Amino acid sequence: MTFELFYWPGLQGRGEFVRLAFEATGTPYVEIVQGDAPARGMDGLMHTMDDPACTDPPFAPPFLRVGDELIGQTANILAYLGPQLGLVGESPRARRWVNQLQLTLADLVDEVHDAHHPIASRLYYSQQRAEARKRSADLIEYRLPKFFAYFERVLANNPQASGWLSEAAMSYADLSLFQVIAGLDYAFPRAMSGFPKAFPRAQAVHDAVARVPRVAAYLKSPRRVPFNTTGIFRHYKALDRVSPF
Amino acid sequence: MTFELFYWPGLQGRGEFVRLAFEATGTPYVEIVQGDAPARGMDGLMHTMDDPACTDPPFAPPFLRVGDELIGQTANILAYLGPQLGLVGESPRARRWVNQLQLTLADLVDEVHDAHHPIASRLYYSQQRAEARKRSADLIEYRLPKFFAYFERVLANNPQASGWLSEAAMSYADLSLFQVIAGLDYAFPRAMSGFPKAFPRAQAVHDAVARVPRVAAYLKSPRRVPFNTTGIFRHYKALDRVSPF
Repeated sequence: MTFELFYWPGLQGRGEFVRLAFEATGTPYVEIVQGDAPARGMDGLMHTMDDPACTDPPFAPPFLRVGDELIGQTANILAYLGPQLGLVGESPRARRWVNQLQLTLADLVDEVHDAHHPIASRLYYSQQRAEARKRSADLIEYRLPKFFAYFERVLANNPQASGWLSEAAMSYADLSLFQVIAGLDYAFPRAMSGFPKAFPRAQAVHDAVARVPRVAAYLKSPRRVPFNTTGIFRHYKALDRVSPF
Repeated sequence: MTFELFYWPGLQGRGEFVRLAFEATGTPYVEIVQGDAPARGMDGLMHTMDDPACTDPPFAPPFLRVGDELIGQTANILAYLGPQLGLVGESPRARRWVNQLQLTLADLVDEVHDAHHPIASRLYYSQQRAEARKRSADLIEYRLPKFFAYFERVLANNPQASGWLSEAAMSYADLSLFQVIAGLDYAFPRAMSGFPKAFPRAQAVHDAVARVPRVAAYLKSPRRVPFNTTGIFRHYKALDRVSPF
């Protein structure tokens, strides 16, 4: 079974949460941008997604193709991969809990995206700069502290006191928490300067994930697309602020 | 096993997607606002959610309490309830597909919310009216057509041609599609006037769900909180527009 990952080229985006699951576990996968029609570049991705005969079309990338099945929505992809890749506990309860954490991280990711695109995804940042300044201020001052106080509490209350979000081992939600913190460090270096002290348990998850040998190797490889201003986490100096933490 | 649903009082909100699953299947549930401390009103909900000893705290309502487990995130709650309530197919593939559809509906719900709150959830609508006008215009002209063209395609391509989103029977995603269309009808009556002709298959799901006897009885009961301007779907005349469909 080959895992084929379809995502936009040139950015980490939501595809990165799936890539990290593959990379952290040494799972072979094929990244498809050119899709079924290599000569046509991105048309291949669009061709697969927009195939009029498709009975399980995704609304948007990322999506996986596994055999004749397309699996879309990041959290749904990870709920599917997690058990196969050993990135979630065995019990149904542990799987629900990790899925719940992943969905809460997905909500945060949406809010980070909308901080630079509060009016319309379709328009450029430069067309909504004034609104982006207001929404970013709210994100930094109110939303980041609220979300990370929550994750800090989850880490503190894990009955297994493992340092991971759920049970005794790293789950895909830990990989995603790493990615969110790494992305925020890139986007808002001033605001995040106080993060390690304010949220030591979340920071420790970030650091532990970065040290996993396969993850460390991936982060140094050319497969890790650098953060840039076309992804979810964007560094615009005008949107960064003094640390609220 | 008693299902206890925790949600904010006085609005449908995201709790309604869970209520509809219970109501459509005649499943007993207890709605808890007052939580563990009835005399303290909403403090009971907050008390449960913010209990410092909780090992599986939800980030936000709605959440279920089942025995000693708290289950949060709407799509996660429905993925848990669906199989027990007969609101999703038996196969893992069908369950992934319905979860994927639910997550896409959840994305749309987030966008509808942000149309009246594009800057900050924490602030009043009146504090972000100008921005709300811009974002609502984009929602109505670009996002609603994109989302509903997608659902129309899913309905058209269902191999079982059942009129439902997945396989042969109504799933929880159909209930949620009903709720989204009903909410948009309330919020944007002008914009939605062209909907039934433009998206006849989605409209037919809405109408079929509304005719399910248990749903019809629920919608007429006092348990159905009326739409109002504290929920996700809000009618503000200034945000409605001529139909793009």
